[in-house]
Amino acid sequence: MTTVAGSGHPTTCLSAADIMSVIFFHAMHFNPRDYEAPDNDRFILSKGHAAPLLYAAWKEVGLLTDDDLLTYRMIDSGLEGHPTLRFPYAEAATGSLGMGLSIGLGEALNARLDRAEYYTYVLLGDSELSEGSVWEAVEIGAHYKLERVIAVVDCNRLGQSTPALFGHDVASLTAVFESFGWRALTVDGHDIPELVKVFDVARGRDGRPTVIIAKTTKGFGVDRVADQEGFHGKAFGKDDLEDILQGLREKFPEAASSDTKGWEPTLPDHHAQTMTCNVESVAMPAPGYSRGQMVPTRVAYGQAITALGDVCDTAVSLDAEVKNSTFAELFEQAHPNRFFQCFIAEQNMIGMAIGLNQRGKVPLVSTFSAFLTRAHDQLRMAAVGQARLRVSGSHAGVSIGQDGPSQMGLEDIAMMRCLPGSIVFYPSDAVSTYRLVEQMARYDAGVSYIRTTRAATPVIYSNDEEFPVGGCKLLRQGEHDSVCVIAAGITLHEALKAYDLLAVQEKPIYIRVIDLYSIKPLDIETLLASAHASQSKVLTVEDHYRQGGIGEVVSAALCNNGIRVESLAVDVLPRSGTPEELLAYAGIGAAAIAAAVADMIR
Amino acid sequence: MTTVAGSGHPTTCLSAADIMSVIFFHAMHFNPRDYEAPDNDRFILSKGHAAPLLYAAWKEVGLLTDDDLLTYRMIDSGLEGHPTLRFPYAEAATGSLGMGLSIGLGEALNARLDRAEYYTYVLLGDSELSEGSVWEAVEIGAHYKLERVIAVVDCNRLGQSTPALFGHDVASLTAVFESFGWRALTVDGHDIPELVKVFDVARGRDGRPTVIIAKTTKGFGVDRVADQEGFHGKAFGKDDLEDILQGLREKFPEAASSDTKGWEPTLPDHHAQTMTCNVESVAMPAPGYSRGQMVPTRVAYGQAITALGDVCDTAVSLDAEVKNSTFAELFEQAHPNRFFQCFIAEQNMIGMAIGLNQRGKVPLVSTFSAFLTRAHDQLRMAAVGQARLRVSGSHAGVSIGQDGPSQMGLEDIAMMRCLPGSIVFYPSDAVSTYRLVEQMARYDAGVSYIRTTRAATPVIYSNDEEFPVGGCKLLRQGEHDSVCVIAAGITLHEALKAYDLLAVQEKPIYIRVIDLYSIKPLDIETLLASAHASQSKVLTVEDHYRQGGIGEVVSAALCNNGIRVESLAVDVLPRSGTPEELLAYAGIGAAAIAAAVADMIR
Repeated sequence: MTTVAGSGHPTTCLSAADIMSVIFFHAMHFNPRDYEAPDNDRFILSKGHAAPLLYAAWKEVGLLTDDDLLTYRMIDSGLEGHPTLRFPYAEAATGSLGMGLSIGLGEALNARLDRAEYYTYVLLGDSELSEGSVWEAVEIGAHYKLERVIAVVDCNRLGQSTPALFGHDVASLTAVFESFGWRALTVDGHDIPELVKVFDVARGRDGRPTVIIAKTTKGFGVDRVADQEGFHGKAFGKDDLEDILQGLREKFPEAASSDTKGWEPTLPDHHAQTMTCNVESVAMPAPGYSRGQMVPTRVAYGQAITALGDVCDTAVSLDAEVKNSTFAELFEQAHPNRFFQCFIAEQNMIGMAIGLNQRGKVPLVSTFSAFLTRAHDQLRMAAVGQARLRVSGSHAGVSIGQDGPSQMGLEDIAMMRCLPGSIVFYPSDAVSTYRLVEQMARYDAGVSYIRTTRAATPVIYSNDEEFPVGGCKLLRQGEHDSVCVIAAGITLHEALKAYDLLAVQEKPIYIRVIDLYSIKPLDIETLLASAHASQSKVLTVEDHYRQGGIGEVVSAALCNNGIRVESLAVDVLPRSGTPEELLAYAGIGAAAIAAAVADMIR
Repeated sequence: MTTVAGSGHPTTCLSAADIMSVIFFHAMHFNPRDYEAPDNDRFILSKGHAAPLLYAAWKEVGLLTDDDLLTYRMIDSGLEGHPTLRFPYAEAATGSLGMGLSIGLGEALNARLDRAEYYTYVLLGDSELSEGSVWEAVEIGAHYKLERVIAVVDCNRLGQSTPALFGHDVASLTAVFESFGWRALTVDGHDIPELVKVFDVARGRDGRPTVIIAKTTKGFGVDRVADQEGFHGKAFGKDDLEDILQGLREKFPEAASSDTKGWEPTLPDHHAQTMTCNVESVAMPAPGYSRGQMVPTRVAYGQAITALGDVCDTAVSLDAEVKNSTFAELFEQAHPNRFFQCFIAEQNMIGMAIGLNQRGKVPLVSTFSAFLTRAHDQLRMAAVGQARLRVSGSHAGVSIGQDGPSQMGLEDIAMMRCLPGSIVFYPSDAVSTYRLVEQMARYDAGVSYIRTTRAATPVIYSNDEEFPVGGCKLLRQGEHDSVCVIAAGITLHEALKAYDLLAVQEKPIYIRVIDLYSIKPLDIETLLASAHASQSKVLTVEDHYRQGGIGEVVSAALCNNGIRVESLAVDVLPRSGTPEELLAYAGIGAAAIAAAVADMIR
């Protein structure tokens, strides 16, 4: 495969080939002809660059042909350079290292929810153990006593450009896993009878997750590369291939002469009681807020996911040790079995959510919007795998106040907009927050994101108001609008204050005010019509850095229509202060809006 | 302080107050009146929410007044809710948890380079140990045998909303640290004589970094909150304060009656041989490329940083186990003592770079642009702390080809533009890459970023061409330009191909072509003039997601000037394929550019 493709990682595959054979053809209980069967054991290839191994295993299982394999890395093939969900038997998109174990924990948590008894196997490389996200998963796997997780470390000693941190020191690695509360087993990763034994032991549960540390040789079986640096990610040349294959046949005559034709999988027993929820048509009861009531949107988020949990059995909440700030604690109180405390380990939280989603759950993930940056790579890979995570980032913007810049989410709109297939909401009151959580539940095509505010803001919508994806709301409009002000979240309220300031002047100025609750997708048609009805002048204002935010997206959307677009956004390095002081400091408060409007009509 | 401010984390401070006293007034050798002295021991508050402790310590040292302390969290104060560099005695901006230890490692590496013998103390909370970044630092600290790092874990058992993972199980924590290769010492964190002893032991080096695990009580000394959940981040009320203070006086009469007036710091011995480089005027020898030569910009990056290392003693290179892909290996070969292999642990790499920078080094940090997302939170905090990191992201865009979407950086322009104070470069040939690395070396006001390409591209500039920050280059222009095409990196070459395609048609179309090597800051003046000279029509094309990329920034910059701006960007979920196939798949290749131009002039 790699020789035909002219690229790929054959030496990485060779170190894990024996392990992979034992996982697929001895250890796992699964029905390969019914991939989604809820009792099937699961396999996740965390070391995604060994993708050919995964494809080869499914070929041996009988579901692919040799011709399929030779499409590896081609533009129209599902057999990509690293696994994606375009390959129907990939359990996760991998290739950014150190994520597979977290995804496996999510699948194991799913098993617990569904009373299923499947095992989740995760194959890791040793170099990826450097990633902190792996140790997050190790900590959390031990915390939840996920005894049906079986991690396997292909300890082949060599990374891409340098030996891995632990080298072949499997004793130290064992001590690390044991000290974190795992059962650690070691094995010669090329001794098939020993591998069979250790995988049998691993299925005997003892209340802890299990790791099998397999000492292996990178490039095993091919003397010219085995255990040598300099051969990572290098395909063998066509001229060398027959020679190499012949060498393997001579070295492993039994493997060369046997095949899997007579093999029958061990089918799993049936235990799963799969939860169901038709998310596309899920309907929550109407919210019960009163206009003018002061409710932080983060509180409304907590109330909304709790209500969603009432009507959707598959809804699960994950929070990174800030549940009393994001108000995910409301969900926990109502649905304790479906709430997962993820501690301060955002990367693993997103990974677990990917795993839960892959097995049919509706993950509602929350933390401070600033700290979602910690899991940016996991979110990126969630999007590559088209995982349907529902994500909430609270404490957005400078308006959080005294805690200061480390706690302020000011780049989350840019980050979440960049995810392919994502939608991005930024509500300004409790009703819209509640209703948008319902839209997120129904959105099953990718990651959905809702940005919430720390401060209490007044309820401005009636409880029966609807908030379609890709819509916006005209809150102030008249015959004589001079500028259309587009805002969302906290700045929407500043824009409404600016409306009042401007309207009561001696020479009143009237502005149109739009609540841009849906930033992606964008309601270009309404924005354009409103801009044209406001002297073709638009002012955006947002509690977010300028880059990748509302101003840029609105500018790009309207720029070819003769509209003047000015934008107020956070251009300063923020600091501690009161919310009001900081809105003024960043130039995004009511006074700044009024001044900008006055400038625009001068 | 917290009571006056009405917010903050007094219980978090109380658990670490005794530890902090012993660190500042017994353990550290430093001259507080000469903060920057190169032999001073260093202190980093990783648990940044305990900021009042840091401020109180420096008040006791004698450099702040009580009045200063009472400005805590005020808009015009340097005493922010979490430490930033606005406080002159903060060693790092912290508050996003789990970063301090990495920063400390960077400071310890600096000591090694400078032959200094200072110790770096890092105070961590126990809850932040959940962050994988901490374990990255633990692994790397052991690897580099940084025996002058002394980490202290304030093990107070309680997090924000739930008990921490290890609770008061200091034995298990000790085993984890020991298994990773650290010396772990335990102590009662409220027993001053024992603390004094353990800190003395910690300074006796044994080839390993040291962690002191201090068992403490959150809210120690205040019975109404001590060791209880529900009091994280809650300031005491004004009405309760005197009562609480009186209780503390009665409980700790010796502390209440003594002060630090007679205290004299232990001054450090002088060992440091500080390296110097005046980065603002650093000059590298001219590059030696030939026009038309095919050189990947990632190779030019490696060559440039190597040349920089020749002329700048403080330049250090950090790479995340892809040095043979980013070509940081060239720097390693030339300057092995100043190259730090960071393994696959991007978060710790950025943290170490922050620490190295804080102590005067010029960190050149590289990995795949996709994997910089792994360290987004660290990059965000680097910007909050105005750290001057020079960052390179290689393998940008779909044009990397067969390895597939997990390896493609398609959101890095948005991410890096969002950092306050950052500059963002995207060169298209070897000469500009080389020259822009020199500009990055000189840029000393924040994070600088350079995006490089996997494929070889032809050299298009002469070796003496200059590339000012915030500039761009007109590569094709004439009297009859119909559209101004703005591109950078790989798509610049596609734009040049499109120029040729369009110019040889039966009815030739002429386009202006701009190399937008500086995306932030943006050369608005030249872009505007070129747009006006091209029928007021602009087409941007980029190998990056649409969101937050070149198209949006150019649209926002030009939108109020009657310019039509159309943008080609990556709107699809990419996949494996050849670079050429993928440029076509994403609609950003020469043919797509030519078609878009034809559309625009129809």
